[in-house]
Amino acid sequence: MEYRKIKDEDKEGDVIPSDVEGLQSKSLSGTVAAFGGSSREQNKWKRKTIVTIALTILTSSQAILIVWSKRAGKYEYSVTTANFLVEALKCAFSLAALSRIWSNDGITDDNRLSTTWDEVSVYPIPAALYLIKNLLQYYIFAYVDAPGYQILKNLNIISTGVLYRIILKRKLSEIQWAAFILLGAGCTTAQLNPSSDHVLQTPFHGWMMAIVMALLSGFAGVYTEAIIKKRPSRNINVQNFWLYIFGMGFNAIAIIIQDFDAVANKGFFHGYSLITALMILNHALSGIAVSMVMKYADNIVKVYSTSVAMLLTAVVSVFLFGFHLSLAFFLGSIVVSVSVYMHSIGKIQR
Amino acid sequence: MEYRKIKDEDKEGDVIPSDVEGLQSKSLSGTVAAFGGSSREQNKWKRKTIVTIALTILTSSQAILIVWSKRAGKYEYSVTTANFLVEALKCAFSLAALSRIWSNDGITDDNRLSTTWDEVSVYPIPAALYLIKNLLQYYIFAYVDAPGYQILKNLNIISTGVLYRIILKRKLSEIQWAAFILLGAGCTTAQLNPSSDHVLQTPFHGWMMAIVMALLSGFAGVYTEAIIKKRPSRNINVQNFWLYIFGMGFNAIAIIIQDFDAVANKGFFHGYSLITALMILNHALSGIAVSMVMKYADNIVKVYSTSVAMLLTAVVSVFLFGFHLSLAFFLGSIVVSVSVYMHSIGKIQR
Repeated sequence: MEYRKIKDEDKEGDVIPSDVEGLQSKSLSGTVAAFGGSSREQNKWKRKTIVTIALTILTSSQAILIVWSKRAGKYEYSVTTANFLVEALKCAFSLAALSRIWSNDGITDDNRLSTTWDEVSVYPIPAALYLIKNLLQYYIFAYVDAPGYQILKNLNIISTGVLYRIILKRKLSEIQWAAFILLGAGCTTAQLNPSSDHVLQTPFHGWMMAIVMALLSGFAGVYTEAIIKKRPSRNINVQNFWLYIFGMGFNAIAIIIQDFDAVANKGFFHGYSLITALMILNHALSGIAVSMVMKYADNIVKVYSTSVAMLLTAVVSVFLFGFHLSLAFFLGSIVVSVSVYMHSIGKIQR
Repeated sequence: MEYRKIKDEDKEGDVIPSDVEGLQSKSLSGTVAAFGGSSREQNKWKRKTIVTIALTILTSSQAILIVWSKRAGKYEYSVTTANFLVEALKCAFSLAALSRIWSNDGITDDNRLSTTWDEVSVYPIPAALYLIKNLLQYYIFAYVDAPGYQILKNLNIISTGVLYRIILKRKLSEIQWAAFILLGAGCTTAQLNPSSDHVLQTPFHGWMMAIVMALLSGFAGVYTEAIIKKRPSRNINVQNFWLYIFGMGFNAIAIIIQDFDAVANKGFFHGYSLITALMILNHALSGIAVSMVMKYADNIVKVYSTSVAMLLTAVVSVFLFGFHLSLAFFLGSIVVSVSVYMHSIGKIQR
């Protein structure tokens, strides 16, 4: 449903191909709708808002599905096969969207699937980085427990901000930097629980590994944005197709490394249930939403979106699962809210 | 020592009586040192900085003395007699400073002790408000425990900001408001401990009482600033003298209400020790520093100063008493630091 909405928006963008290019240079100079064409600017703003909201909703429903599946005790499928199917589904969605565009607009330079080595050579890099990060994830649990890892994962916020600045050379204003530090502190505060202090006893190796993982994850995100933004007029579905094809490839490698025996003995779909299928669908749609946010907004918006999703998940879990909200959660939410406000204020004054 | 420093600074102010008036109107318009007289501006800024640092150091050493006295198990003196002595000592300090000023500069309209009913009639109000607040303090413990009360006391930050805006009609910029909300959230986060969530179970009556106490405390602070700032050229020691004389009066009432029997049977100084004397001296100096901050800065600076002092206390306690800093403390400190930065940024852009 969300995907349909995004698709319709996207089609609009294909009618005026220079649109996205305009958005990028505009948002860089920071003077939105300063001259003429305000309806174009409005369209861009609308599309940016819709993909951001879609990502927020999909991310929070993702977390809720995970809690639900754990509660239902269904977690015995192999994660690598599910990840492979997520990539395959994203590929299928991209192809479906493309075939609709082809039948409406005909095949153009921007929406044709065939490509050059120059364009496609960078697409495997994010997928490879994510694979390395996911493999490292198995080793970090030798140093920290799962709740501690949740806390350390907030280092992603800081690493994304730093790499966004260094690699994409996009400037955040001083207030936006302050806001970003607050986002990290607020998210961590919201996740505090009575045993969180254990994380301070994490050994040096654990810290290093957490920092490397944060850098890998941040780098993969920023690099994806760089790839997608490099060719602003290129149709996002083509870009997604190539990203996801390599994603499928690397996840096939992961299946062989980690779950070859299980798949060979019990079958590819062993342990799957309705909830597994829903999770795969949700992950696929979230992945597409992430790409859309990279195309029409940026990594900073993505981090804000997933952080707000984390808070939303907790609030929804109160109603769905009778979860209990802590004082730390309220305080963290206040800090995150002020951070979101400051980020928007900082943009205006830039 | 700190007091001496403040005094010397203050003497400087008496040589140029219009000085303070200038400071006030300047800081209102927010254009510091925009034209000429930059050395005057520098002196004002220096004085403001010194009183703020003095207040921060005195407040944090206050908290450390309290911990020390509790550790030493010496807490059996009656608090009301100590409070009375604090007011008396502040009175004595003010008179000593005044007598030095009189012998140096002679008696002028601004430094004479005699006053009009019109000037003096408002001075009892802050003392009366503090008395009511201190009496309420005994009743709130029926609803919350001591650590819970520490958490709820952070409502003072918000009430001070709101009353500062309403009563003194001084504007904070949007960023400064955001910073102030962060200050409250950050201080509370820094004080979180595994049992903090109990405070969420505070009954309605407890919340109401905590809010009333926060309003009383905020109102007393803001009202004191209004009294002191109303006559900018009036010597601060005269203003302090009148404030503290009424403070002595109201604390005498408190002795009669709460500790009459204890004082009558065991004597006024029962249970006093060296540490009690140090605490009384420290409270007196802190009280004078608060007045100075009200005169040369404002309630907002006071709140920041005491909040930073709270963090300093915790850090110093690690070395002195082997206290353990929590992850929540680190996160709260980050948020408070960003808040201080934003407050200063917000001022420039106003």
